[in-house]
Amino acid sequence: MFGIMRVIVIGGVAGGMSAATRLRRLSENAEITVLERSGHVSYANCGLPYHVGGVIEKRSDLLLQTPQTLHDRFALDVRVHHEVLSIDRARHVVTVRNLDTGADLELPYDHLLLSTGARAIRPPIPGIERALSLRDVEDTDALVAAAATARDAVVVGGGFIGVEVAENLVHLGLNVAVVEATDQVMAPIDPEMATPVHDRMRAHGIDLRLGSAVAAIGPHDVTLTTGDTLSADLVVAAIGVRPETTLAEQAGLAIGERGGILVDDQLRTSDPAILAVGDAVEKTDAVDGTAALIPLANTANLQGRRAADVIAGQAARNRPVLGTAIVGVLGLQIASTGWSEKRLRAAGRDVRAIHTHPASHATYYPGADTIALKLLVDPHTDEIIGAQGVGESGVDKRIDVIATAMAGRLPASALADLELAYAPAFSSAKDPVNMLGHIAQNLRTGTSRSIQWHEVADAVAAGAVIVDVREASERSGGRSIEGSVHIPVNELRDRLGEIPDGPVIVHCAVGVRGHTAARILTQHGRDVRNLDGGYRTWNAGIRAHVTPA
Amino acid sequence: MFGIMRVIVIGGVAGGMSAATRLRRLSENAEITVLERSGHVSYANCGLPYHVGGVIEKRSDLLLQTPQTLHDRFALDVRVHHEVLSIDRARHVVTVRNLDTGADLELPYDHLLLSTGARAIRPPIPGIERALSLRDVEDTDALVAAAATARDAVVVGGGFIGVEVAENLVHLGLNVAVVEATDQVMAPIDPEMATPVHDRMRAHGIDLRLGSAVAAIGPHDVTLTTGDTLSADLVVAAIGVRPETTLAEQAGLAIGERGGILVDDQLRTSDPAILAVGDAVEKTDAVDGTAALIPLANTANLQGRRAADVIAGQAARNRPVLGTAIVGVLGLQIASTGWSEKRLRAAGRDVRAIHTHPASHATYYPGADTIALKLLVDPHTDEIIGAQGVGESGVDKRIDVIATAMAGRLPASALADLELAYAPAFSSAKDPVNMLGHIAQNLRTGTSRSIQWHEVADAVAAGAVIVDVREASERSGGRSIEGSVHIPVNELRDRLGEIPDGPVIVHCAVGVRGHTAARILTQHGRDVRNLDGGYRTWNAGIRAHVTPA
Ligand SMILES: Cc1cc2nc3c(=O)[nH]c(=O)nc-3n(C[C@H](O)[C@H](O)[C@H](O)COP(=O)(O)OP(=O)(O)OC[C@H]3O[C@@H](n4cnc5c(N)ncnc54)[C@H](O)[C@@H]3O)c2cc1C
Ligand SMILES: Cc1cc2nc3c(=O)[nH]c(=O)nc-3n(C[C@H](O)[C@H](O)[C@H](O)COP(=O)(O)OP(=O)(O)OC[C@H]3O[C@@H](n4cnc5c(N)ncnc54)[C@H](O)[C@@H]3O)c2cc1C
Ligand SMILES: CC(C)(COP(=O)(O)OP(=O)(O)OC[C@H]1O[C@@H](n2cnc3c(N)ncnc32)[C@H](O)[C@@H]1OP(=O)(O)O)[C@@H](O)C(=O)NCCC(=O)NCCS
Ligand SMILES: CC(C)(COP(=O)(O)OP(=O)(O)OC[C@H]1O[C@@H](n2cnc3c(N)ncnc32)[C@H](O)[C@@H]1OP(=O)(O)O)[C@@H](O)C(=O)NCCC(=O)NCCS
Repeated sequence: MFGIMRVIVIGGVAGGMSAATRLRRLSENAEITVLERSGHVSYANCGLPYHVGGVIEKRSDLLLQTPQTLHDRFALDVRVHHEVLSIDRARHVVTVRNLDTGADLELPYDHLLLSTGARAIRPPIPGIERALSLRDVEDTDALVAAAATARDAVVVGGGFIGVEVAENLVHLGLNVAVVEATDQVMAPIDPEMATPVHDRMRAHGIDLRLGSAVAAIGPHDVTLTTGDTLSADLVVAAIGVRPETTLAEQAGLAIGERGGILVDDQLRTSDPAILAVGDAVEKTDAVDGTAALIPLANTANLQGRRAADVIAGQAARNRPVLGTAIVGVLGLQIASTGWSEKRLRAAGRDVRAIHTHPASHATYYPGADTIALKLLVDPHTDEIIGAQGVGESGVDKRIDVIATAMAGRLPASALADLELAYAPAFSSAKDPVNMLGHIAQNLRTGTSRSIQWHEVADAVAAGAVIVDVREASERSGGRSIEGSVHIPVNELRDRLGEIPDGPVIVHCAVGVRGHTAARILTQHGRDVRNLDGGYRTWNAGIRAHVTPA
Repeated sequence: MFGIMRVIVIGGVAGGMSAATRLRRLSENAEITVLERSGHVSYANCGLPYHVGGVIEKRSDLLLQTPQTLHDRFALDVRVHHEVLSIDRARHVVTVRNLDTGADLELPYDHLLLSTGARAIRPPIPGIERALSLRDVEDTDALVAAAATARDAVVVGGGFIGVEVAENLVHLGLNVAVVEATDQVMAPIDPEMATPVHDRMRAHGIDLRLGSAVAAIGPHDVTLTTGDTLSADLVVAAIGVRPETTLAEQAGLAIGERGGILVDDQLRTSDPAILAVGDAVEKTDAVDGTAALIPLANTANLQGRRAADVIAGQAARNRPVLGTAIVGVLGLQIASTGWSEKRLRAAGRDVRAIHTHPASHATYYPGADTIALKLLVDPHTDEIIGAQGVGESGVDKRIDVIATAMAGRLPASALADLELAYAPAFSSAKDPVNMLGHIAQNLRTGTSRSIQWHEVADAVAAGAVIVDVREASERSGGRSIEGSVHIPVNELRDRLGEIPDGPVIVHCAVGVRGHTAARILTQHGRDVRNLDGGYRTWNAGIRAHVTPA
């Protein structure tokens, strides 16, 4: 074996197996061994919730590869039920336990790659033993079995996996409650964007308990910190994940401030013979350059491939991450990239937020849905810092386009000029992303000024008057902002005298008519701001019952 | 009126009305008059074919605004059935005919904006008078009426509008033939990409006549240059459009080499008091900086808005165009941006083409479609020059992402690093666009070499041997390349000796296994190229019966 490169990969799924297959393509001679603790490799983690709900019917569809297929195609030595117990960095050896036989053995390496992933956070609540988590195929089997006999389920945590599991248990006909300690599900989006998600979940019968934590898990129920008790013959813990760093810590590798394995831009740990990728490592945040944990498959796969390049001596660089993500929940798409407004505000950064409610495609063509988009812009530089979208269709496309614009360092105003594919079934002549660019331009040049939903109350207290330029019918049933003066946009030019003195906040349903109205009033010498996102965003924000810091 | 800016807009649809509304927002005082020859303004040109087919049921849905709504909201003086007959540049006056009364009047302007659009090309074929065209609402009414009593329709031209009209006539139950003079429909895509479109059209019963022109249109039939006669009680001419420059020429404005009105980067014509936008003007091609005609709504709308900014004295710059476009045909999405391979080759440019056939989203999640993507890269600089996609879903998103990457000047290899939103219902952990980036990287670094479908025959003639690494079942029924040696990829390492000497072309179904096989053979010292896009692209190319120059 003299001269042959021996590579060991720990963790045989997204990052690990992407590295192994790529490395084989780069090097026929390398001896590549993949060690995986669970009974499966190359499984579709991201599909697991959908197998629970029967959307992905066949369990075998989750298994993209097996040790045998990987041996046949890639000459990989893949060993499942093999847990690495320790790394001896001095001797370049790992100790592995064959979980089937209990036997331990030592395997030598020239290069070691850790793609150990993340583990579910299991808070120290009484009764937590009974809660199931969902990380691998074995977990899925357990959840499928438990769901088959359960009637009432409590899902703890309203993040990506929590809402996916909740949706799938609803598909199965269970009574589902979701308990979320913060005021909203889906932490990467802002509260006013989460309101339609809450509505959708509740419309599907989910008992959504926001601002409640689980105090104790009993044999048949769950007690919340609010004192409420939810009956529960099935409890799923989906509170989040932490980098799986047990091995790395044991081996004395440097761990970062966020608790992930520290790697350089070649994905090398503090020991240059050991690389690490995926959920287990800290990434560099593309927005501010700080350490970030982004447990997502796209990044894990890309990093795995890059790590193979590094091992094979090809030029490769790890990249900062935006954390672009999406989840589908009960027919809604929820996607985001970069930072949220609440995060920016918490970090003390100035931010220009833009809310729109465009149609997913031309309204005159059947099947268009209204989507909610939010763009976050640095008001000093026009840099795009983040974006969010919620809606039934076309959200994935707009967030992908914006994430790509961010990668290309296009300023927000340049979104106006993007040439996006238009035919009525797919978009509008001015795509929603173009429209975000127009609005960003208007704000940047001072052509318009906007006010956010959470700034309205203070502005009114300070003497601002609200002018609602919608039609009368749109205000019926209490759907108006208290104290607003009502003048439809088309009558504004003739009724200027009816607007009391003082700064004006103008609003319509979503911001479009408000924009035209604001321009009319501005040119008549008034100090005007257009309510960003209109009544719809304001109402969603108010209903979210929280104000960004 | 002294001191008030008088603006006249000719053409009240995409570019013209976008300019008028924007200008009103920028200037409450301007006197804005919009003159439109047809009976409608702000109509949804792009929806017209779908109203013919009943997909857009209500005719009123096509009319986004009326003179009255535009007056009420934007204080615009909009006059339909008003045809501008001439422009007197010296006197800053246009002569307009009220088509309802026949009266002519003169209107003075400080700024004039031409958004006169394009007119349908009507070739001088005997009987052409009987052929209908589709540009405006009146044309649509005529086509709806004619289709109601017709049984056999011939659509002349297989471009965007031709295929849309054909699809809609099929919806109505007519027998439809499409006659196209070149070897393929949808000129912006390459022939091998058009093959599935041809298949789809034929599968829906369309009698597709490629490489045939219409020689004569008789009272009940159409005679082709091939001598064939098609019965036709309805003939639609959709051969393409030419800039509507009648007025501009009459006024002595400079016309460009491609026949559109010449404008500078402020959208000013050769007369600085006159601006022009939309289908009527020449754009600058984003790829090579030459003059281009891009008759698309996105560009017309954006240019209209920019022209208003220029008139209002705001900073605005016209941008070069990629010509990103999409059309839906019988369930297929066909989209493109930038240049095609045939166009690049015709221009004598070196080009690296990449074909893939990825799934629109994770294959283990229900509903994934196979799509065909093509990326065109400058082999010297790694610059992205164009992209094309054909498939049932997710094509719009990938082309928009690539168009955005082009706008951001990301090199092809950087597509590998894009963080695109992934969950199984929306994408794959490595999105199809990432995959294009991986392939581009491999080609750029020399990790792989590829051969195009149209280069195979010559390479074989020069002594190359083809190795098909698919499974035996995939070759059945003649689905193989003549003379290919068959060794499944998984057996390749053991059967190296079976491959005759000489350069090797390796192929699988789409290129993925071929890539792994090529890496194996390369490392065993062979001179290998992977057939780009695999058997699928090769077969589509061969069936297209044409070879790029
Ligand atoms: C239910 C679920 C749904 C998800 N949905 C999405 C989604 O929609 N989109 C998205 O982008 N991401 C999603 N993710 C996240 C995505 O799956 C991860 O980001 C990705 O799999 C991380 O890859 P990795 O290689 O770092 O870790 P993993 O893919 O988790 O692989 C780590 C492997 O290492 C093994 N291992 C750990 N320690 C040892 C040891 N000592 N010895 C041997 N083996 C060991 C583990 O058994 C595990 O199989 C989801 C995850 C889950 C669990
Ligand atoms: C059937 C059809 C389908 C289409 N589908 C798509 C699509 O899916 N995607 C896409 O991007 N593009 C599509 N287009 C193209 C798109 O509609 C045009 O690019 C866009 O409308 C051009 O805008 P414009 O303002 O330059 O011209 P137009 O919108 O065509 O408006 C020009 C107007 O000027 C008027 N006019 C001309 N001369 C005079 C005169 N002398 N006096 C007064 N009025 C005059 C005309 O009557 C006309 O109404 C389609 C076009 C058609 C016809
Ligand atoms: C699937 C898995 C084993 C990786 O296998 P892989 O062979 O690297 O990946 P793919 O089958 O996607 O093939 C990609 C390769 O084919 C190449 N390729 C793809 N299409 C091609 C084409 N048309 N022509 C040429 N090459 C092509 C790519 O460039 C890439 O090769 P490279 O890495 O050498 O550049 C690994 O990602 C895995 O285990 N995934 C499942 C787990 C997971 O991802 N979970 C999280 C999400 S659910
Ligand atoms: C519709 C038409 C009249 C233009 O009207 P418009 O008022 O300029 O366009 P919209 O209604 O889309 O409104 C866009 C304006 O609202 C603003 N806006 C949109 N959403 C907003 C929001 N949420 N908050 C604030 N402003 C918003 C935009 O910035 C833009 O204003 P600006 O140009 O001053 O920046 C014109 O495009 C037209 O006639 N179209 C039909 C014909 C056509 O396009 N055919 C080809 C395709 S089928």
